[in-house]
Amino acid sequence: MLSDLRKLRTFGECGKGVKRRAFTDADIEARRWLASRMADAGLTVHVDPVGNVFGIPDGATNSILVGSHSDTQPEGGWLDGALGVIVGLEVARASREAGGPPIACVSFQDEEGRFSTLTGSRVWTGVLSLADADQLRDADGVSFAEERKKAALIGPVGEVPADWFRTFLELHIEQGPILDTAGERIGVVRDIVGIRGERISFIGDQNHAGTTPMQLRRDAFQGLVRFTDDLNTRLREIVGLATVWTIGHVTLHPNAASVIPGRVDFSIQWRDPSDELLQRMREVVHQTASATAQGMGLEWQTSDYSAIPATQCDPTIVAALERAAMTAVPNGWRPITSGALHDAANVSRLMPMGMLFVPSINGISHNFDEDTAADDLVLGAETFALAINLLTN
Amino acid sequence: MLSDLRKLRTFGECGKGVKRRAFTDADIEARRWLASRMADAGLTVHVDPVGNVFGIPDGATNSILVGSHSDTQPEGGWLDGALGVIVGLEVARASREAGGPPIACVSFQDEEGRFSTLTGSRVWTGVLSLADADQLRDADGVSFAEERKKAALIGPVGEVPADWFRTFLELHIEQGPILDTAGERIGVVRDIVGIRGERISFIGDQNHAGTTPMQLRRDAFQGLVRFTDDLNTRLREIVGLATVWTIGHVTLHPNAASVIPGRVDFSIQWRDPSDELLQRMREVVHQTASATAQGMGLEWQTSDYSAIPATQCDPTIVAALERAAMTAVPNGWRPITSGALHDAANVSRLMPMGMLFVPSINGISHNFDEDTAADDLVLGAETFALAINLLTN
Repeated sequence: MLSDLRKLRTFGECGKGVKRRAFTDADIEARRWLASRMADAGLTVHVDPVGNVFGIPDGATNSILVGSHSDTQPEGGWLDGALGVIVGLEVARASREAGGPPIACVSFQDEEGRFSTLTGSRVWTGVLSLADADQLRDADGVSFAEERKKAALIGPVGEVPADWFRTFLELHIEQGPILDTAGERIGVVRDIVGIRGERISFIGDQNHAGTTPMQLRRDAFQGLVRFTDDLNTRLREIVGLATVWTIGHVTLHPNAASVIPGRVDFSIQWRDPSDELLQRMREVVHQTASATAQGMGLEWQTSDYSAIPATQCDPTIVAALERAAMTAVPNGWRPITSGALHDAANVSRLMPMGMLFVPSINGISHNFDEDTAADDLVLGAETFALAINLLTN
Repeated sequence: MLSDLRKLRTFGECGKGVKRRAFTDADIEARRWLASRMADAGLTVHVDPVGNVFGIPDGATNSILVGSHSDTQPEGGWLDGALGVIVGLEVARASREAGGPPIACVSFQDEEGRFSTLTGSRVWTGVLSLADADQLRDADGVSFAEERKKAALIGPVGEVPADWFRTFLELHIEQGPILDTAGERIGVVRDIVGIRGERISFIGDQNHAGTTPMQLRRDAFQGLVRFTDDLNTRLREIVGLATVWTIGHVTLHPNAASVIPGRVDFSIQWRDPSDELLQRMREVVHQTASATAQGMGLEWQTSDYSAIPATQCDPTIVAALERAAMTAVPNGWRPITSGALHDAANVSRLMPMGMLFVPSINGISHNFDEDTAADDLVLGAETFALAINLLTN
C-alpha cells in the first residue's frame, strides 16, 4: 500500500507536494496508472463519463465501495484524497486475494474544485446533472464538457450504476489539527459539517480622512469591526465545540489610506453538523448586521447565500469503525466531526456511508507540507480493514 | 470675481465638476488664461520652473501674496483651489485699482498630487529640491521633469524669490462638514493638522476554515478587529475634538471565503494640530498592536511611517481674520482646524501665513458634486478683503 501511495505521488510531484489538477496530464496519467493497478488486482475497470475511475470485482452486484479522489489542489499535498484511493485499491485487492467479500474501489474526479466543488461525485450521485456540469468552466474559461472527453484516455467509458454498491467507505487525512494536537491516531467520523455562507456589505459615506470629524463619520470599516466583535460574542452563546465561523474575504472601497471607507463587502462562512444550529446562526448574523447598521447609521445588504446541508454517517458503520479503533488503538482515537466536505457526503445520499481520519501533522493540508507519519498511515489502513471485516462478518 | 471663477470652471469642465490635472491641456490652458487675467489687472506674470504662476505688482518687493492652486483631482470639484486663486486675483486687482497696498497672486502647481502631494509649493518653498522633484513620475510613469517643460507655454519662466513677499493668505473651501452642519459661514483657520501614517501587519496562521477549531486559530483578521476596537477605546481617552484617525486600506491574505486569513496589512493614519499628541498617539497605536498580538498569539510589524508636521497660522493674521469675521458675520463664524493639507502649510515655513474657510455644502469635496452657496463665496471674499485691510492699515 505504501509503495502504491508513493508511486501515485510521482504523478505531478513538486517538492514535497503534488500538482495534479483534474484532467491535467498528470491527473490523466495517474488515473491510467490507477486503472492498470486495479486491473492487476483482478478488478474490472469502469470509467464513467466525468472521469471517475472504478475498479469492480467481476460479477459483484452488491460490493462495498471504497475510495476518495486522486486529483489535487493547484498546489496540493501528497495524501489529500490519494490516501483514500490507494487504501481503497489495497482493501479491494487484499479481500480478493483472501477470498473475502466483494470490494470495489474508486477515484472520484475534480473533488478539489477545478470546475466546481466535488464535481465528480456530485455528478455520479445525481446532485449535479451532467448537462449542468457541462456548462462549468475553470478559472481560465476551459469548459468541463471539453475536458471530460479525456475520460476515454483512461479506459472504456460507460455508466456505473450506484445500485452495484451497498455501502461507501472513505479513509482520509483529517486536514485539521485536532488529532495531532491531542496525540491521537484515529478519528471516527460521526458527521460532516453543513456549510452556510453569504456576502454582506455595510454602506456608509466615503469621505476625506482629514476633514471629516469622528462624530460625523459613517465609516463602513468601523461597521465591520463592531459587527465582527458583536457577532463573536453572540455566537459564542449558542454554538457547540465543532462550530466554526470565518470572515476570510474583505474588500474596502475605495481602499485608500486617506479616505474613510464608504463601503465594505465581506464574506462570512459558518459550519456545524447541525442544520438547525446553522439556521439559527444565520438569524444571529442578520440580527447583528442589522443592529450594527442601525447603531452606526450605516446601511447593510446581504447576497450570495449558499447552503450545503450537514451529513450524518451511518450509525452501523460508525459503530463498526469505533469497535475497530477501540481494538487498534484503545486510548488513541476519538469520534470526530469532519469540518471539510468529502465525496462521502454526496455518496451518502445513495447508500450508507462511513469515514475514518488519520492525523495531519500540524494540521496542515492544501499545502506542499501536508504529511502524516507512516505508522499512522498503516494504522489507519489496518483499522479501516478491521472495520470492513466487522461489517461483512 | 464670480465671473472669473465660472470662467475658470470651463477649463476641463465635466458635468458639475472639473478634470484639470496638473500639466494636462486643460490645466495649461487655464494657467494661460489666468496669466492673461493677471496681465489685464496690471500685474506682471512670472512663471517659475515648476509651473507655479505669479501675478506681481510692478516694483513691489514687499507684497502680500494671495492664492491657492488651479490644478484639480482626477475628478475634482470646481472650487477646490480655484476659489483661492480667483480671490487672489480679485484682491490683487481691486487693491491696484483702489491704490491700495501691493498684493500679488499665485496659482501653485500640482497641489492635488499627480506627481506628489503639493509638489509646486513644496519646490517653491524649498521643502523639495527641484532635482528630487524631477525624479517623480505619475501613475502612468510620466516624469515630472518632462511635464514641467510645459511651464514655458504659460509665460516667461524664471525664479520667483520668496523674499519678494511678506505674508501669505489663502481662502479655501472647508472640504468638510463642520461649518455646513453648524449653519456657519466662515471658518478662521487656527492651524493645519499634522499627519502621521503607517502600515501595520498582523501575521497569524493561514488555515482551512472548516477543519481548524476556533480555539486553535491564529486569525489575522480577528487580530485587526480587536486592535481597532481597543485602539478606538484607548485613543478616545487622550484625543481632542479636532483629532481624527482612520483605517482606510485593508488587505487580507489570501482573502478567500474558505481560508482563515494568515495575514492582514492595513494603513492607519491620524491627524491633529498638536505634534506632541500625534507622537503620543503613535505610542498608543504601537502599544495596542503589541497587546493585540500578544493576546491573540499573532506577530505584528510596522513599516512606511510618515510624518507631516502640524502648522500654526500666524497669530496676528488670525486676529485680523477673526476681527473681519466678527464684523462680516458676528454669529456665523468659528475658529477651525484644517484637517486637510494646503499650500499654505509649506509657505508658512518662509513667511507669516493665514487661511480662511467657506462652507462646503454637505461637506463634499474631491467630487464633482462639490459646491458652496454663491452668497458664501462672496461673503468669504469680502471677509478676506476686510482682513487684508486690517493687516495693511
